[in-house]
Amino acid sequence: MTPATMLALVFDGEPRVVEKATPEPPPGEALIRVTRAGICSTDRELVRGYMGFTGTLGHEFVGVVERADDAPEWLGRRVVGEINCVCGLCAHCRAGRPHHCTQRTVLGIQQRDGAFAQFTTLPIANLHAVPDSLDDDAAVFTEPVAAAFRILEQIDITPETRVAVLGDGKLGQLIARVLQTRTGQLVAVGRQAWKRALLEAAGIATASSEDDLPRDFDVVVEATGAPDGLARALSLVRCEGTVVLKTTVAEATPINLSLPVVVDEVTILGSRCGPFPPALTALTNGTVDPRPLITHRCSLGDGVAALEQATRKDALKVLLDMPS
Amino acid sequence: MTPATMLALVFDGEPRVVEKATPEPPPGEALIRVTRAGICSTDRELVRGYMGFTGTLGHEFVGVVERADDAPEWLGRRVVGEINCVCGLCAHCRAGRPHHCTQRTVLGIQQRDGAFAQFTTLPIANLHAVPDSLDDDAAVFTEPVAAAFRILEQIDITPETRVAVLGDGKLGQLIARVLQTRTGQLVAVGRQAWKRALLEAAGIATASSEDDLPRDFDVVVEATGAPDGLARALSLVRCEGTVVLKTTVAEATPINLSLPVVVDEVTILGSRCGPFPPALTALTNGTVDPRPLITHRCSLGDGVAALEQATRKDALKVLLDMPS
Repeated sequence: MTPATMLALVFDGEPRVVEKATPEPPPGEALIRVTRAGICSTDRELVRGYMGFTGTLGHEFVGVVERADDAPEWLGRRVVGEINCVCGLCAHCRAGRPHHCTQRTVLGIQQRDGAFAQFTTLPIANLHAVPDSLDDDAAVFTEPVAAAFRILEQIDITPETRVAVLGDGKLGQLIARVLQTRTGQLVAVGRQAWKRALLEAAGIATASSEDDLPRDFDVVVEATGAPDGLARALSLVRCEGTVVLKTTVAEATPINLSLPVVVDEVTILGSRCGPFPPALTALTNGTVDPRPLITHRCSLGDGVAALEQATRKDALKVLLDMPS
Repeated sequence: MTPATMLALVFDGEPRVVEKATPEPPPGEALIRVTRAGICSTDRELVRGYMGFTGTLGHEFVGVVERADDAPEWLGRRVVGEINCVCGLCAHCRAGRPHHCTQRTVLGIQQRDGAFAQFTTLPIANLHAVPDSLDDDAAVFTEPVAAAFRILEQIDITPETRVAVLGDGKLGQLIARVLQTRTGQLVAVGRQAWKRALLEAAGIATASSEDDLPRDFDVVVEATGAPDGLARALSLVRCEGTVVLKTTVAEATPINLSLPVVVDEVTILGSRCGPFPPALTALTNGTVDPRPLITHRCSLGDGVAALEQATRKDALKVLLDMPS
């Protein structure tokens, strides 16, 4: 029996754990009992005002389908879910760019309550079954690993492509692990020794500063989470090379693109959400193992402290366990 | 007999017309008697401190080969010249990106005296003969028309590609004329009625503000010459569309790329110098006629006033005629 109320970590000007009504899934959607969720840097930015979001936070989760009136075959299955909920009718949906749907809501980010709660809802079409051999601790990373795989949909990376990943945080760590599967010419740049050690343990070359590297990378992935990340990326990319921008931050930063972009004919490419199937495959076959990134576990009731913990320098991935 | 001294419009902290020694062409270079030159917005930016340039200004010219010791077949020929002078040996040159040569000098822009002078020098390899049927007034536009053709080397534009060109200035006018040869879905956005009238006379649809246009252009070419041009371009480009950046300005501007680039997965592409052969072909066969852009003609002796005139709102292309 699904309880009438549940705990949820919401943001309405400040983050709070509240008791609220368990959501009723609309037609075509499933009710999911969340078992584990992950805190992402975007959650921190939302709490700083990015997107003007209010509601239940959270978009990285794994859970079990509790109700699925329109698709009972999903009942009881362990799932992860794509976060963009789309109309299927607008120009972007019809042009094959559904995650840019103009009518979209986004789980825990844009006009849709998220997954830092005992229950959440998503369209059935967004669900992906989690293989039994993939544990919750790895499966909860499916969404950010998919965001890393998005880069491989957007640009060609061969074994000879020289790639620098800027940022040793949660997303940078995952991107480096995913791109390592494609190129032998990868270096990850990170400021913190213990985060570099995690990369090196995964077989990834590192540098502590871009100042130590030549400006000759074919591709630089900017995943610093900092407003000066683009300028740092431009200091590493070769002429006619590509900077992939992953950072979303709340603030503007002054930059002059004349020399590093126009004169050097650099491409800057924005990159957001990615495909779940290759992410699930890589997590299941162990090509990408994100579990060393888990530094803290909290219960949902301590969610406010967990959000704060996730911003500290000794943290990478902070997981939230749901009360059962 | 080549005179020992010549007039030149130089910048050494301020623009001045001076008498200086006629340059001696190094091995492999030609001495060119300049007959006509054009003032570009980059010249204005150089005078404002962009690139830290000092020396003879000017990179748009047409002239006649006066000396070419290593290639006498060029003697007396009317020519235009590519402005990037390259080493042929560095990694970029060897990788087929010679105009990004790390050792390059650039005519009137970077460590090489330019063409606002009675004589200039360029490597023989940079010269292109001007067909007899192409008059000096059109030929002097070869370099900026080539810069417009660069866009067609970088991205695919089909008859159905929806393109907006932002900026009704010198370069925007030429880019619109070049892209019009590829797509029927072009609109040029310009603030000034008389400049829009020139575009319309060339058969190009116009708008006075991007506010009047939907945000659904596949490609937006930013040629405003203004620091806020990128933000304006991002307000017009569709998700997963491309902004081509042409503006080079001296100052930085604050911008937050999180929403318009990362979330919407837009590509920003820097674009600089382009191929002379298609530019010469288009000018010669009349597909692109730049001559309506000529608003003022000055003699080189009045070069300082001409630079000033080129910044005024009633000016587009200001030509400099050389004393013979």
